[in-house]
Amino acid sequence: MKLNIAVLSGDGIGPEITQQSVKILKAIAERFNHEFLFEEAVVGASAIDLTGNPLPDPTLDLCKKSDAVLFGAIGDPKYDNNPAAKVRPEQGLLKLRKELGLFANIRPVRAFERLLEHSPLRPERIEGADMVIYRELTGGIYFGEKTLSDDGKQASDLCVYSEEEIERMTHLAFEAAQKRRNKVTLVDKANVLETSRLWRRTVKEIAKKYPEVELDFLYVDNAAMQMIINPKQFDVILTENMFGDIISDEASVIGGSIGLLASASVGKEHTLFEPIHGSYPQAAGKGIANPIASILSAAMLLEHFDLLEEAAIIQAAVDKSLEMNICTSDINKESSYSTEKVGTFIEGLI
Amino acid sequence: MKLNIAVLSGDGIGPEITQQSVKILKAIAERFNHEFLFEEAVVGASAIDLTGNPLPDPTLDLCKKSDAVLFGAIGDPKYDNNPAAKVRPEQGLLKLRKELGLFANIRPVRAFERLLEHSPLRPERIEGADMVIYRELTGGIYFGEKTLSDDGKQASDLCVYSEEEIERMTHLAFEAAQKRRNKVTLVDKANVLETSRLWRRTVKEIAKKYPEVELDFLYVDNAAMQMIINPKQFDVILTENMFGDIISDEASVIGGSIGLLASASVGKEHTLFEPIHGSYPQAAGKGIANPIASILSAAMLLEHFDLLEEAAIIQAAVDKSLEMNICTSDINKESSYSTEKVGTFIEGLI
Ligand SMILES: CC(C)[C@H](C(=O)O)[C@@H](O)C(=O)O
Ligand SMILES: CC(C)[C@H](C(=O)O)[C@@H](O)C(=O)O
Repeated sequence: MKLNIAVLSGDGIGPEITQQSVKILKAIAERFNHEFLFEEAVVGASAIDLTGNPLPDPTLDLCKKSDAVLFGAIGDPKYDNNPAAKVRPEQGLLKLRKELGLFANIRPVRAFERLLEHSPLRPERIEGADMVIYRELTGGIYFGEKTLSDDGKQASDLCVYSEEEIERMTHLAFEAAQKRRNKVTLVDKANVLETSRLWRRTVKEIAKKYPEVELDFLYVDNAAMQMIINPKQFDVILTENMFGDIISDEASVIGGSIGLLASASVGKEHTLFEPIHGSYPQAAGKGIANPIASILSAAMLLEHFDLLEEAAIIQAAVDKSLEMNICTSDINKESSYSTEKVGTFIEGLI
Repeated sequence: MKLNIAVLSGDGIGPEITQQSVKILKAIAERFNHEFLFEEAVVGASAIDLTGNPLPDPTLDLCKKSDAVLFGAIGDPKYDNNPAAKVRPEQGLLKLRKELGLFANIRPVRAFERLLEHSPLRPERIEGADMVIYRELTGGIYFGEKTLSDDGKQASDLCVYSEEEIERMTHLAFEAAQKRRNKVTLVDKANVLETSRLWRRTVKEIAKKYPEVELDFLYVDNAAMQMIINPKQFDVILTENMFGDIISDEASVIGGSIGLLASASVGKEHTLFEPIHGSYPQAAGKGIANPIASILSAAMLLEHFDLLEEAAIIQAAVDKSLEMNICTSDINKESSYSTEKVGTFIEGLI
């Protein structure tokens, strides 16, 4: 298979982790005789530094003509505590999601057997936990109108959803449930939000087409608690943009490290694969960042193009590295390996 | 001291838990020669059943002329999965908060020594955790304009904040920090939301007046993760309405049971005290609901009126009941006591 992959490694630890997943994809291409063509482009704070724009046109053009985007991470503290900054790295990612129509963000979360001892949660609570979060990615309060009054004393953000946006997400979530344990949990705040009530109504309607899938509802506050008390109850979680952002970062504690969580963002025409962790600027350049989330994102990329054997080989290699504790310091405190060493170990198994 | 206390016990387990805290307040009044006058009124689903209105005028009037409101819980499943319902129990609570101007919701969270083994988190992660969440309660997406298009296919919720709303909250949080460990963490999503940027700007400005208090910022997604990974880092958490709702329910896992978490809601003129748990309809009438959150809310009420010795006696009695495992089944699985028994045990220590 031939694939054009746009590589947007971004800020902070983005470049060093993405380098590892590119290395692994190259090893896969060689072993399976695929042709993967990688082309790099700038995004985020590094793009602002170079061009003043967090998503320069050439970057967007490259992404549009590629088969998939492999994304690193973005964000830089110099923008974080400058609420007056007019241009911010995050705008690059948000615009990219919107322009590519990546409406569904898919985040699998499971407890790794070898890392049970590593989670802040008791092993018996998480052993066997295995869920996937379907987070809507191009709607809601992220993309509604924002205002700031002229005197700077009042601000607003609008959360908007249409039935159509909810429907397409819901179908994806139910299809995923059919291949898993046939359960969908809608996380919303229908006792307060009008948009949540639209979600609930729409999802209930669509659920009728999937009679074998059980549909459950949880208010987001309760869900944030249930995620810790009893994560095994979840199979597919379906939720809107902001709630998905919060719940999925929280869920990362189940895996033992946010450095393990991959994600796929899909739309009608485009796809993007990225770790759920951020740019972790304090670690940049130190070789201590965990490359596994990025490597597993690369595996999700292969899965998306039905290269299932290839994806499975990467997953098995990652499992092996966890099992043998060939891990960065977030997981292996005593005798950690560098970002590159972990990547090379996994590459060696391909 | 003379206090007029409006008792709004509400739905589900609301009445049975509130009965216990009233009993305890009466014991305190007797022992310390206070005059506490209790007057009851309906709210929530039970008020809808009786009057069609979740917050009937007589209830609101009573609250307005009382010194404090002791609130139980509201919510009924018959409204939850009926997104088309025009009247909902929650509107009663939201309207009450707004009408009484209860802009600050204060939720203390700590790990109880005796319950360390009870939390889904590893004991070493939570031992000594002790924080208080300052959640803004009358602004944000809860109270902004809501729309539903005529064809029912598009909905919106507006999140609005003014500098003034943020300022008054921020002062309360910093004053609390001064009496604690001098640290405030602002939880927001300033990399995406305009309202969050207004929060960050305003809070930074006010922080200058409290030079001895350290100010920290966390994005809400990261905060939801940090709450589980390292809850001991938090002293005072300051946040907007929706994020506070999510983060504080999540934080309840630290205490070992949501049945232990009390809250105070304060404004310029009025105050309301309520457990953070909901109406738990499945348990209603069974005598299994934990009354401690409501009893500790009553202690917060006393504290608010500077009856510090009285409040401390209740807290000590609660500690004793936990220590001796005179607890409901959420905590004491083997030989649990009923809601009423727990209340009576605590009453006996006053
Ligand atoms: C960087 C930020 C804008 C982004 C988001 O909130 O969506 C990130 O937290 C994520 O989850 O991908
Ligand atoms: C019942 C509901 C409207 C309420 C809220 O979201 O504020 C509750 O969850 C709370 O936290 O007090």
